[in-house]
Amino acid sequence: MRLTRQTNYAIRILMYCAANEGRLSRIPDIAQAYSLSELFLFKILQPLVENNLVETVRGRNGGVRLARPAEEITLFDVVRVTEESFAMAECFENDGTDCPLVDGCGLNEALRKALGAFFDVLSSYTIRDLVNARPNMRGLLGIEHLEMRPAVS
Amino acid sequence: MRLTRQTNYAIRILMYCAANEGRLSRIPDIAQAYSLSELFLFKILQPLVENNLVETVRGRNGGVRLARPAEEITLFDVVRVTEESFAMAECFENDGTDCPLVDGCGLNEALRKALGAFFDVLSSYTIRDLVNARPNMRGLLGIEHLEMRPAVS
Repeated sequence: MRLTRQTNYAIRILMYCAANEGRLSRIPDIAQAYSLSELFLFKILQPLVENNLVETVRGRNGGVRLARPAEEITLFDVVRVTEESFAMAECFENDGTDCPLVDGCGLNEALRKALGAFFDVLSSYTIRDLVNARPNMRGLLGIEHLEMRPAVS
Repeated sequence: MRLTRQTNYAIRILMYCAANEGRLSRIPDIAQAYSLSELFLFKILQPLVENNLVETVRGRNGGVRLARPAEEITLFDVVRVTEESFAMAECFENDGTDCPLVDGCGLNEALRKALGAFFDVLSSYTIRDLVNARPNMRGLLGIEHLEMRPAVS
């Protein structure tokens, strides 16, 4: 049981944007900070942009920034749009199982409640919380080196 | 995010044994009830036997049964022995990530707490609960048809 790589990097991209608040974050800079390809970064950004967590500014001085304050984006907001499926078991989906218990099995109910508890905790953490947990995050992400550039917002 | 196929069938095998309490459950009968191969069933049984959730009786009239009462086996007991990894993110493991935030990132803490809440719910459900949730389970699993056989225990 694990979250997808997309989800993990989506959260880290949002953390980067939050740590770089007030400025646009450039794709090559984010990619370098996390040793990712720009192509993979664009793929991850797509659902974040479509679901209004990130906004893009085009052009030579373009980049990305959070579409709303970091304290208003919870981890659940991210997971909800980046995970493809929360079908904990095959039998959560309509087909693909030959289990004779498929209708109203107690296992379904237990897993749904467990998943609900998992989401409740994720809803209690915001991107701001994660960034505040690391006082030296700007240094770790290499953002301080970029400060000499003119601010764009 | 989903549980492995092994985990799902492990739970269903335990449900079968609980529904067939007082008798040994034969591998071909369980395999038929869930449309599984016997080879896959043996693979799933292995960690259940090793971790004292199921015991096997060899011989012509052999089979499997719960190693302790169904009300003393929680879903967490099963998941703990059948899921290969609870590394929610790549950075839960020591290597395999280039993330500069890997030491003590707030994301790790949030995911660990969320997973803890997930496990807490699973710990509150026993195999007995799941079987009791379906009064007609013996019929659905085809166990009633087997009742004519002599009981072995």
